[in-house]
Amino acid sequence: MRVEDAGKDIELDVEGVSEYLGIPVSRLRKLLDKRELLQNWGEYQHLFRFVTTFSGIESGTVICQKDGFFELIKGFPKIQRAMLLEPAINTHFSETDTVCVEEKMNGFNVRAIVFDGKITAITRGGYVCPYSTEKAGQLLNIDFFNDHPELVLHGEMVGPDNPYVPKKIYDDVDSIDFYVFDMRYKGSGEPLPVYERRKLAEEYGFTQVRLFGEFTKKEAPEKIRAIIFDLGKIEHEGVVIKDPDMNIPPVKYTCSQSNCADLRHAFKFYNDVGRDYLFSRVVREGFQAFEWKESEEDLRKRCLQLGESILYPMIDAIGEMEKGERVAEEVQIRVSSLDTLSKFKEYLRRQGVEAIFDEPEKVGDEFLIKIRKLNKSTNDKTLSMFKGELW
Amino acid sequence: MRVEDAGKDIELDVEGVSEYLGIPVSRLRKLLDKRELLQNWGEYQHLFRFVTTFSGIESGTVICQKDGFFELIKGFPKIQRAMLLEPAINTHFSETDTVCVEEKMNGFNVRAIVFDGKITAITRGGYVCPYSTEKAGQLLNIDFFNDHPELVLHGEMVGPDNPYVPKKIYDDVDSIDFYVFDMRYKGSGEPLPVYERRKLAEEYGFTQVRLFGEFTKKEAPEKIRAIIFDLGKIEHEGVVIKDPDMNIPPVKYTCSQSNCADLRHAFKFYNDVGRDYLFSRVVREGFQAFEWKESEEDLRKRCLQLGESILYPMIDAIGEMEKGERVAEEVQIRVSSLDTLSKFKEYLRRQGVEAIFDEPEKVGDEFLIKIRKLNKSTNDKTLSMFKGELW
Repeated sequence: MRVEDAGKDIELDVEGVSEYLGIPVSRLRKLLDKRELLQNWGEYQHLFRFVTTFSGIESGTVICQKDGFFELIKGFPKIQRAMLLEPAINTHFSETDTVCVEEKMNGFNVRAIVFDGKITAITRGGYVCPYSTEKAGQLLNIDFFNDHPELVLHGEMVGPDNPYVPKKIYDDVDSIDFYVFDMRYKGSGEPLPVYERRKLAEEYGFTQVRLFGEFTKKEAPEKIRAIIFDLGKIEHEGVVIKDPDMNIPPVKYTCSQSNCADLRHAFKFYNDVGRDYLFSRVVREGFQAFEWKESEEDLRKRCLQLGESILYPMIDAIGEMEKGERVAEEVQIRVSSLDTLSKFKEYLRRQGVEAIFDEPEKVGDEFLIKIRKLNKSTNDKTLSMFKGELW
Repeated sequence: MRVEDAGKDIELDVEGVSEYLGIPVSRLRKLLDKRELLQNWGEYQHLFRFVTTFSGIESGTVICQKDGFFELIKGFPKIQRAMLLEPAINTHFSETDTVCVEEKMNGFNVRAIVFDGKITAITRGGYVCPYSTEKAGQLLNIDFFNDHPELVLHGEMVGPDNPYVPKKIYDDVDSIDFYVFDMRYKGSGEPLPVYERRKLAEEYGFTQVRLFGEFTKKEAPEKIRAIIFDLGKIEHEGVVIKDPDMNIPPVKYTCSQSNCADLRHAFKFYNDVGRDYLFSRVVREGFQAFEWKESEEDLRKRCLQLGESILYPMIDAIGEMEKGERVAEEVQIRVSSLDTLSKFKEYLRRQGVEAIFDEPEKVGDEFLIKIRKLNKSTNDKTLSMFKGELW
């Protein structure tokens, strides 16, 4: 099947998938009826995504159907969080002596595969993002995929030319880069051991997340605290703690500064942000301050920082809206082809994101496009308060 | 019907209620089947409560069925909140020239009626609380109810001997008191005008919420700001702004200190508290700080207070749990009769509240009982973190 087939309507081969996944036809049909198994569109109609977690298949899992063959690209498993480092490391990693600590970067999570001869970027939700696909195609060495068709490459896409997490955090990323942090087998979703994955990534010249080291479980909490302290100073996000053999699922832990940066960003759009978002970050602060037995002064600083991260952006945003401005998330993308831009516009539209695209600016041999994502709920709610409506 | 009937099983007279309320029998039966119209127990089986809002009947509404007669005690209507005082007052009270400002007290909301010859206290949810019933019986002059059987008396029960909101806020309340803030007609739920209600309350010697004054709409925002400033200093909750004629629904507005006190209390039990609770208080702080155009220094103080109100109680509670203690809400009640105590125990148990009652202590001619309400979710979650589980 070729891209030229794009116009044709592809249907899920329910019997074939049923046999391949060992799921009864009737259940697959039910998933289709309930729109829990959905088809991607355009040239990606051969990719079907699971919207909810179902019989051990995580949401975001993609099934790729090609001329009677099938491939399963498992959804990226949610990484659980340590609230108290020491007990979490001891208990969770009881079966291993040491842990590897890698950086957790703040961008968006992408699974890269080759589909129809082209590197294709699948988002956490199982969509094909046309922008990430163009970028992954430019950034990644396709030989990896040809030599290892059994593997899915997992990476974090970070940098200022990023339409999802528009933070300028990483000094060495001028536009956008793909940091490899996992390789997993198609079908089973089993990961490669840490060093094997890093070696392979190096062979193909991939950018990788930083490995801080391998530590005994005894020394790990103190080492991680020091790493988190340093990462926090430069507003990086945190770490992922991994079993070197990857037999045990990894665990994440983040910096206070990153929590607060999240809150600062979120409270500009206070009514668009999930309430769980606020709650979870606040709880993390509490546990971290407790475990680190902070001095009265450090604790006071943490409280002030928390309060400021919540209130200042909100007050500023209300002030902007009073002046008639509208709060919007400002992001940008940089594309080689205007075709990618139009596909990306359509992609956001289909996802229900309201966005205003500026005219493309030619920069070198690329186009830079500024995008304002409107946060309708916050704008509407705030304006209604100015009009005297009640909460 | 008499209390001696208590043992007998009373059934809702569906046909009678249908005719009285103008609701089809089939819909009433459906409400009963879905457990959205429930019967109180024991001696209060004649009182049925609406669990959800239904055809203009607020949740918490009670229908009282006595020997073929019916009475409707409407649920207390939710009071909406002003986020920005000035526009809210101008818009919401557009049909009146002045507004009355009364104190909003921090306790629990009770509707008092006479049932079976006794003053009976109905909670917001439509339950009869045996403790509040004993207290209301002691605190209120029954003549009011005999002279005005058409009225429901609404009050806030506050004070340290309060099993629901155990704050020691009001210096002039040693045990518990009933502060009248509303009188409404049975059936329609229509309220009495402010001054008429206050005069009637005075005639019967009722304690009333404080009336700060009647202000023109132009002066009200500034006056209220000053009242809120003073109330905040003594950690009182806030105000309710009312149309003197009560033709327009009232509006509430609260002090920052009260928000923060709520948060301090809530974050001791971080995992038992709704996430909306945190979110709503934070948003109020943002709007208040914005409207009052606070100085940089005052704003910084507000941020610090917000952060401290969230983190300190949480860190303290985690520390207590680490030491093997369990966090619990400590409340107390003071009863004349041990029968009330056993009824109240049963009442909490039926509501699914886990509570440990101390032995009653004889104080004068009453019994003081200390109660620890266990916040199971916070205890369990925190202990699991100490055991190394992940979030």
